[in-house]
Amino acid sequence: MEKISEFTIRRLSNYYRILLDLEKRGIATVSSQRLAELGGITSAQVRKDLSYFGNFGTRGLGYSVSDLKAQIVQILGLNHQWKLALFGAGSLGHALFFHQGFREDGFYFKHVFDVDPAKVGTKWNELTITHQRLAEETLRREPVQIAVVATPPEAAADVVNLLVRCGIKGILNFAPAQLSVPDGVWLRNVNLAVALESLSFYLSM
Amino acid sequence: MEKISEFTIRRLSNYYRILLDLEKRGIATVSSQRLAELGGITSAQVRKDLSYFGNFGTRGLGYSVSDLKAQIVQILGLNHQWKLALFGAGSLGHALFFHQGFREDGFYFKHVFDVDPAKVGTKWNELTITHQRLAEETLRREPVQIAVVATPPEAAADVVNLLVRCGIKGILNFAPAQLSVPDGVWLRNVNLAVALESLSFYLSM
Repeated sequence: MEKISEFTIRRLSNYYRILLDLEKRGIATVSSQRLAELGGITSAQVRKDLSYFGNFGTRGLGYSVSDLKAQIVQILGLNHQWKLALFGAGSLGHALFFHQGFREDGFYFKHVFDVDPAKVGTKWNELTITHQRLAEETLRREPVQIAVVATPPEAAADVVNLLVRCGIKGILNFAPAQLSVPDGVWLRNVNLAVALESLSFYLSM
Repeated sequence: MEKISEFTIRRLSNYYRILLDLEKRGIATVSSQRLAELGGITSAQVRKDLSYFGNFGTRGLGYSVSDLKAQIVQILGLNHQWKLALFGAGSLGHALFFHQGFREDGFYFKHVFDVDPAKVGTKWNELTITHQRLAEETLRREPVQIAVVATPPEAAADVVNLLVRCGIKGILNFAPAQLSVPDGVWLRNVNLAVALESLSFYLSM
């Protein structure tokens, strides 16, 4: 497969949501033009993105909503169940843990770690919050594929090093910290300010 | 100014963070190549993005970190102070309100609205949480430029309609709901699952 940029993947995620919505509304086919309109991009971009993965559409008829959705689900790996560990049981961690969209996509939190004695031992749903000092042995005994880091920024680097030692290959980081990981580990940083910066750009024009 | 895609804006936000970091480390100039490496994209893309806004670099010398940062700050509208209203004082709202990155970028929460009687009247920092039924009159009396929606999905459409009635032009929505706004209002949806989907893509390869 050709090298695919993160921006393509984000657009695929976006197409996936649009297709889910079209499906709910009982719409069976969609043109690249319409998909582009709904996604706020050009139809050339839509066709280019989808061409990475082979030829889904039928000329003149457009794409089957359910087929295209199924293909994107497979491309994005959403036909798997993914086990997650959460680091940081603060308000952001709480919001992520209870975010229903994750479960719908097949992402399940299996562990929650924190260092706060007031939180350790308490339960979120059926899951007991574990002290972070037990994270390494817990993750070796009951591994996960992805870790979500929602700690304070100054704690994030130690957590990431621990995750790398445990062989975890996917890290989603919300802490505003510059982190690095070795080759073969995928680190995604989510910066909550970026969307605000896009608004301030458009509002300043 | 040429039409600029949201993806370009996101990359500018990314360059801005990289430049902030370079500046902290005392680095005065940066090539488009190095910027591309740090941003995980091609140097052609970097040059293309920056070319929308004029010619910053010097051939062979690269870009001045502080000049380029100052230009991007201006482009993104981060040289303003932006007033924000938050709807939804749940765990996500709490995390956003106390996110220090927003204040550093010039984004200040001026109002917090919720419908929960247990929350209304309590304080976050110096700010008292107001009942959402008072939002319209509050926003007319003390306007903001941007509203952040962190309500449950089923409440988001009513909030967005209220915001449009109040003349608010920038809306950052975290609720997983399909929302629409009239022309002239900028709505950005933040889907917390998208970054996870990017990880599951790479981990499935």
